Amino acid sequence: MRLGTKLWFALVCMLPLLAQATELRGTGDLGIVIERATGSVLVVDTSQRGTIGRVEGLGDLSHASVVFSPDQRFAFVFGRDGGLTKVDLLTASIVRRIVQAGNAIGGAISDDGTLIAVSNYEPGGVRVFDAKTLDPVIDIPATGADGKSSKTLGLVDLPGRRFAWSLYDAGEIWVADLTDAKAPQLTKLTGIGKLPYDGNVTPDGRHYLAGLFGEDGVVHVDTWQTPLRAERILNGYGKGEEPLPVYKMPHLEGWAAVGDRLLLPAVGHHDLIAVDLRDFKEVGRIATHGQPVFAVARPDGRYVWVNFAHPRNDTIEIVDTLSLKIVHRFAPGPAVLHMEFTPRGNEVWVSVRDADRVDVYDATTFAKKAEIPAQKPSGIFFTVRATRIGQ
Amino acid sequence: MRLGTKLWFALVCMLPLLAQATELRGTGDLGIVIERATGSVLVVDTSQRGTIGRVEGLGDLSHASVVFSPDQRFAFVFGRDGGLTKVDLLTASIVRRIVQAGNAIGGAISDDGTLIAVSNYEPGGVRVFDAKTLDPVIDIPATGADGKSSKTLGLVDLPGRRFAWSLYDAGEIWVADLTDAKAPQLTKLTGIGKLPYDGNVTPDGRHYLAGLFGEDGVVHVDTWQTPLRAERILNGYGKGEEPLPVYKMPHLEGWAAVGDRLLLPAVGHHDLIAVDLRDFKEVGRIATHGQPVFAVARPDGRYVWVNFAHPRNDTIEIVDTLSLKIVHRFAPGPAVLHMEFTPRGNEVWVSVRDADRVDVYDATTFAKKAEIPAQKPSGIFFTVRATRIGQ
Repeated sequence: MRLGTKLWFALVCMLPLLAQATELRGTGDLGIVIERATGSVLVVDTSQRGTIGRVEGLGDLSHASVVFSPDQRFAFVFGRDGGLTKVDLLTASIVRRIVQAGNAIGGAISDDGTLIAVSNYEPGGVRVFDAKTLDPVIDIPATGADGKSSKTLGLVDLPGRRFAWSLYDAGEIWVADLTDAKAPQLTKLTGIGKLPYDGNVTPDGRHYLAGLFGEDGVVHVDTWQTPLRAERILNGYGKGEEPLPVYKMPHLEGWAAVGDRLLLPAVGHHDLIAVDLRDFKEVGRIATHGQPVFAVARPDGRYVWVNFAHPRNDTIEIVDTLSLKIVHRFAPGPAVLHMEFTPRGNEVWVSVRDADRVDVYDATTFAKKAEIPAQKPSGIFFTVRATRIGQ
Repeated sequence: MRLGTKLWFALVCMLPLLAQATELRGTGDLGIVIERATGSVLVVDTSQRGTIGRVEGLGDLSHASVVFSPDQRFAFVFGRDGGLTKVDLLTASIVRRIVQAGNAIGGAISDDGTLIAVSNYEPGGVRVFDAKTLDPVIDIPATGADGKSSKTLGLVDLPGRRFAWSLYDAGEIWVADLTDAKAPQLTKLTGIGKLPYDGNVTPDGRHYLAGLFGEDGVVHVDTWQTPLRAERILNGYGKGEEPLPVYKMPHLEGWAAVGDRLLLPAVGHHDLIAVDLRDFKEVGRIATHGQPVFAVARPDGRYVWVNFAHPRNDTIEIVDTLSLKIVHRFAPGPAVLHMEFTPRGNEVWVSVRDADRVDVYDATTFAKKAEIPAQKPSGIFFTVRATRIGQ
């Protein structure tokens, strides 16, 4: 009995050690795959090209987006239903989940990693939370110059503990300095144009662009200039002759920024537009297989991978950014929804929703290297996003 | 006694759990500070602005450099004495240390994280190791067109499991495709100019530049072009009228790449040269406090922080890249050797060697936020480098 107790004792003591050995790992190669239909996410490992856990109970993950803490341990998942969920990647579990609004559309994390901001449709405005606890820090209502409350969208982080976003109903762009989070300093650009439906910033955090639904064009704010000014660019980029519903407008996170150019999906056309970042003029068009949804640059900028809207959404085309020519086309499977490159761009993960699969491709040879089962996968987000501005 | 045993049992079983709780952490906010004089490194935590361990026994760390594994758990430290040490950041301990040459000058990690390459002075050539084990994979001797063995330097990784480096004695630049690591495909550019003393690549992995010690200029290879070609640029950039010893030549890792410009230290002058990346022509000069050593861009590219050579090495100047004017100057202390920004650029760490201190500054307000004791600190390297090309 004495020996038996000792053995039992030794075994029980070993358990946490074994667990520790499994769990002590780096987080630079982790990521999240959204499983929209089931309200769950996969925690994935890009080194192993596999899944290390599934986290359930995240609510409505339509158009969900994800940002990461600076230590790359925690993911913040923004759901369409106003849900904000903090996920621990190392334990594949929920740290805390709040429902902070009735209807929301993405968020951002401040450059110091301390604040999470969410842009809301219902009610409008932006709400800011403590990244550690998800406790509320401040609400910033979006009351436009018209005196009415606006939906907000196109929320991004900027250097210096700042955020920028657009007011859909009022037609404004706001830049908020949250150095003192309890007393945000707001710069409001009013009368920028009708119904900005999406916004984004270039990877250096300098140029904020918003697409206009109510007019035919894009608004540009160079955040390095003082005072801030909104200027119209790319007239003709917008919806053109045929009116389109807002959900058909391309999302501006579908841009690729490569060197001194942007590649943008042309609204309602089977084209990418190349725009010079020095003067925001169109410098070329690339005819594509379908209506582009996402144009994603390989991190070195040499190639841009493009997927397409239904019914041509089984295909990816790869554009050589030097020649602006398509160098490869292939069909991964039904409903290619998203693409995410590993940090230095050697591989790319592709969600093939209707095949319940994420495929991993070699980004140099285009050879398929792995297939990972997933339940109706949509967005893919790797922890490298913690290191990038404007995510 | 029975109760006593149970208590002891419970306590002993808790120990590994406590250890686990401490050690289970993300690695996105970790880094290494080189302590050259003592052959040691500090493992640091940028979130806590502090040190989490010291690792000793790394040999001669003059001009040491560091790369990181894709999971951001392991650092590979390249010493001047040919030492290559793999450090586990989570346990602050050495995984393996080899002395792979008599005299070496930096290394790189392949874009897939599997290969570590080191450029050697004695003997010359490049040696390649398995990143997991540090076992040798292949030696690539650097026998130039002159039939003699060369020192190698300016070793960088390129996309597609490639590396590039320069041959000092032979005056050549080689690009190696290690898709099949046992059978490297070498492209040799010969007759590029006399005595390339350093080389580097732009952050997109596209433009490889080597400074010439034997002539007055820089050599440029656009790695996106086929066939590869070496072209002379920036005549007058080099040592100019007065002959300087090679150790006085600026290191090309001292560049800042901002948007479509490079800022380069001018040899033997108190100047930074602004170079347009579209045509590699000089477009401006910035008069500085001393001979610049490192010009380091804040990740958004808005500001470049510059330190200087002895005897003006107590000072930092900050250049606004929009106006090319100096907007701030301050003296952190004696012998400011290196600067490293946090991934999104909210803070910057500065090694003040002769004060035995690393200072942390707010990169927006320039206020000092922390002082961290260190033994004669020199280079500072954060794990975000795992996500960057050409490190």
